[in-house]
Amino acid sequence: MKQSMTFIPTLREVPSDAEVKSHQLMLRAGFTRQNASGVYSYLPLANIVLKKIEQIVREEMNTAGASELLMPALQQAELWQESGRWYSYGPELMRVKDRHNREFALGATHEEVITSLVRDEIKSYKRLPLSLYQIQTKFRDEKRPRFGVLRGREFIMKDAYSFHATKESLDEAYNKMFTAYQNIFSRCGLDFRAVIADSGAIGGTDTHEFIVLSEIGEDTIAYSDTSQFAANIEMAPVNAVYEKKTDELKPLEKTETPDQRTIEEISSFLNVTKEACIKSVLFKVDDRFVLVLVRGDHEVNDIKLKNLYDATNVDLATADETKEALNCVPGFVGPINVSENVEVVADHAIASVVNGVCGANEEQFHFQGVNIDRDTKVSQYADLRFIQEGDVSPDGEGTIKFAKGIEVGHVFKLGTKYSEAMNATFLDENGRTQPMIMGCYGIGVSRTLAAIIEQHHDENGIVWPNSIAPFQIHLIPVNMKNDSQKDLSEKLYAEFIEQGYEVLLDDRPERVGVKFADADLIGLPVRVTIGKKAEEGIVEVKVRKTGESFEVALSELQGLLKQLLGN
Amino acid sequence: MKQSMTFIPTLREVPSDAEVKSHQLMLRAGFTRQNASGVYSYLPLANIVLKKIEQIVREEMNTAGASELLMPALQQAELWQESGRWYSYGPELMRVKDRHNREFALGATHEEVITSLVRDEIKSYKRLPLSLYQIQTKFRDEKRPRFGVLRGREFIMKDAYSFHATKESLDEAYNKMFTAYQNIFSRCGLDFRAVIADSGAIGGTDTHEFIVLSEIGEDTIAYSDTSQFAANIEMAPVNAVYEKKTDELKPLEKTETPDQRTIEEISSFLNVTKEACIKSVLFKVDDRFVLVLVRGDHEVNDIKLKNLYDATNVDLATADETKEALNCVPGFVGPINVSENVEVVADHAIASVVNGVCGANEEQFHFQGVNIDRDTKVSQYADLRFIQEGDVSPDGEGTIKFAKGIEVGHVFKLGTKYSEAMNATFLDENGRTQPMIMGCYGIGVSRTLAAIIEQHHDENGIVWPNSIAPFQIHLIPVNMKNDSQKDLSEKLYAEFIEQGYEVLLDDRPERVGVKFADADLIGLPVRVTIGKKAEEGIVEVKVRKTGESFEVALSELQGLLKQLLGN
Repeated sequence: MKQSMTFIPTLREVPSDAEVKSHQLMLRAGFTRQNASGVYSYLPLANIVLKKIEQIVREEMNTAGASELLMPALQQAELWQESGRWYSYGPELMRVKDRHNREFALGATHEEVITSLVRDEIKSYKRLPLSLYQIQTKFRDEKRPRFGVLRGREFIMKDAYSFHATKESLDEAYNKMFTAYQNIFSRCGLDFRAVIADSGAIGGTDTHEFIVLSEIGEDTIAYSDTSQFAANIEMAPVNAVYEKKTDELKPLEKTETPDQRTIEEISSFLNVTKEACIKSVLFKVDDRFVLVLVRGDHEVNDIKLKNLYDATNVDLATADETKEALNCVPGFVGPINVSENVEVVADHAIASVVNGVCGANEEQFHFQGVNIDRDTKVSQYADLRFIQEGDVSPDGEGTIKFAKGIEVGHVFKLGTKYSEAMNATFLDENGRTQPMIMGCYGIGVSRTLAAIIEQHHDENGIVWPNSIAPFQIHLIPVNMKNDSQKDLSEKLYAEFIEQGYEVLLDDRPERVGVKFADADLIGLPVRVTIGKKAEEGIVEVKVRKTGESFEVALSELQGLLKQLLGN
Repeated sequence: MKQSMTFIPTLREVPSDAEVKSHQLMLRAGFTRQNASGVYSYLPLANIVLKKIEQIVREEMNTAGASELLMPALQQAELWQESGRWYSYGPELMRVKDRHNREFALGATHEEVITSLVRDEIKSYKRLPLSLYQIQTKFRDEKRPRFGVLRGREFIMKDAYSFHATKESLDEAYNKMFTAYQNIFSRCGLDFRAVIADSGAIGGTDTHEFIVLSEIGEDTIAYSDTSQFAANIEMAPVNAVYEKKTDELKPLEKTETPDQRTIEEISSFLNVTKEACIKSVLFKVDDRFVLVLVRGDHEVNDIKLKNLYDATNVDLATADETKEALNCVPGFVGPINVSENVEVVADHAIASVVNGVCGANEEQFHFQGVNIDRDTKVSQYADLRFIQEGDVSPDGEGTIKFAKGIEVGHVFKLGTKYSEAMNATFLDENGRTQPMIMGCYGIGVSRTLAAIIEQHHDENGIVWPNSIAPFQIHLIPVNMKNDSQKDLSEKLYAEFIEQGYEVLLDDRPERVGVKFADADLIGLPVRVTIGKKAEEGIVEVKVRKTGESFEVALSELQGLLKQLLGN
């Protein structure tokens, strides 16, 4: 493509309203412009990258056995009323009336449409499983659109849906999709983790988020520094083994601890380690009181507590409830001598505490010399704390680190939520009517574009991975008025294309400094500069990523490009 | 693709609500399903064809020097208010409010968005011309959606816009686009005409519609049976040469013609040919009366009249106006002895009428023996009639025929309409501020899909042209339970793909009659059937278009396919 004929409006200044690097660079390098809050135009360079990402997505979806289709953005309200989401989705779902005053949703997602489509056509287990996907513009009226196309109101998404007669069939499709997602994000050059995100069962395999590691991310994940393990911090199981000290057991002793409530205060006041403190937190789990014990250096994970009891509601007990249950004020609560109506559960780490400290259920007093088995009635031990940096990875390989990240994909076993609500059934082998079992699988295509830039840039601009660069070669004649430079540029432009490269020729009548600055901003993998030595048949080749540059004779150019770009 | 894994819900019955062939076949062959009135899902086969059409469009747009971008569907009301179309577009423009009650148009077209985008970035003639296009879903709330995806409310469109410093530059881009459109529709296998559609100047070159010939079309066009000439019937200039008879001139004679008003009545009553009758039609052209004369076998073209006078309004005179101007009732009006305040203009054909017949401006009377030059005062002769079938083509080559057609594309010189309204200006070479000169160029991508089917089908189903067929080969094992048939099918499936063919393998456990009927409906160019002779290494090849079939040894299969499909 010739730069004079296309539209790459670069900016020298960093736009003041762009907070994150990808947003700044997409504006500065002429990739996007904002049309309204959270609504963007993708200019030619961005469009090329989008199409490349889409192509990668298509190839991997097809390999996973899914067929592409295209559903409409205008979705009848009646469908959303069937699933109930017309009422529950809230203002994020944009709604529009047609000239006959009929209501439509603007497609935020397509579970309802695909479910209605499939239920109308498929009646027998013989025609299952079926996986369908589309790549399409979606609309979600975000409360706070921000970070450019990372969180927009109109964006491009790949959404896939699968339909099954059995759970095993769903598992199989899910695993294929999982592999496809790994391939897609790898091919896009992203450093990402497939993160356990199940809110139903700890360490479950019913849903994963694909998270691109980035400081600007809104999610925190726990990942192993050596294995593939990764999970949302809420979801990561703790698999630690705790060593129990062989110290002689001390007697239980009540100590006055005036106004010492927090673990920090108590450990300092009594001069003991946090590890020796037993943190006791009273919860209301549905209708019962549960006192949860974790070590002083740990935090209670209420999602794990909720899952332990398969509870609907888990809340911290209020001061009144604490008074009612333990006849005590918060800050001095402990597991010794609690009444029958309070169940005491403990994190595994508590079993190894020797001669610990805990609240005495009496204002201004704690116990010292606490030994759980001897002094308390713990009804059960379980994994009840948040994982921490430095913990052993739950899969046994490596150590846990924390990172922030951007969600670019999500695979999810829907089960029969939509098929039951919308009556999408089939006849099984025995002629019985069953609801179809479903999975859904999303990728934020335009968000992926921004995430790539977030991970691939330096102080001068974007640094595209070769696989999704808008072009591979930026061909820059220093002076278009010089005939031999101009002629050689045109010749090489044609040759490179002939050789199968994608080339951007900067044929603009601009100063070379402007051209170089723009080239760095745009960030194509290899820059070929035609300068004064054109007449001698020598050009300069510069690698965007490393900054390396070479003076090359034309005879050696093809070999070098092959080496650098691997064509 | 394996048919068992994808979604092609064919129907045996013709859906009762589908009026036209393309709509019926897209439903029956499992290409589309309706989600709401004028809103459709494109199932996997249709999606493949759409993507092929889009690829052809992209290649030709890029060759024409246009760059692809992607603009949003959500368009701020303020932009449409700037152009004025927020108020003038009517209910076809769908409007939506966001959570902050801000108003948006759902993109029906993108003149406003692209003009605002370009005006914000381009300030100098040095960065012009610029051609940009997108392929995108559009929304227009049609009053009467019909014919399936031919006239939908949500549809896919390619829209291009060009920006220029000079009219010459616009002409150049327009011509390139024109060529691109010819290539696109030819590559899609369509029989189409590029039709002059200018409503500004007869025979003008400021706008063309690309019309696919079809009986179901809503437009009537006049085209030459041998040349490329084609025009909307309103716009076609008449270039006929009329022979003037050398009969002796008869004297003017007034004849009583009781209740004989129409040309039919008069020619029959007086026993003269229609060609000898002078049809006199009184118009109000803006503020003046104009009596238009055309031959009895011709019709007045009021658009030509309007253009002749560069008028704003052209209307047939009412009975009262006829009384006022000619002191006569309609039906007996004529050009002889008219007052000064009525201008008489005549179509060129009138100059050749000898001894004609016309109204006498007196109720119940006509003149015979009328000779225009002798008896009337014609102020000017001009092309004032509709072209007719059988007329010589205006370009001198061939004879005019009429046809109906479907508009699939439109190229249009917008001029400065939007750039002036929205202040999209640039500095010219002399430093003067000028409005950009614009062109716009649309293609209905989803409509093109339907138009192809409208032209390519037979009584059994669709007959795809090779260039945009969803697959080239339909591979059909007669009996999937027969191991040698199954094995050979799998082997050939892999081989065909290896050889670069697109193949649909019907691996469903269906009876062969069902498979063949579905294959005819779907309409892939070549069917390869693996039957009983599989063990002998013989298969059947059938050409969908001609119905020809061949029994072929496996050794000869590749050669035959190459011959039929040209890979």
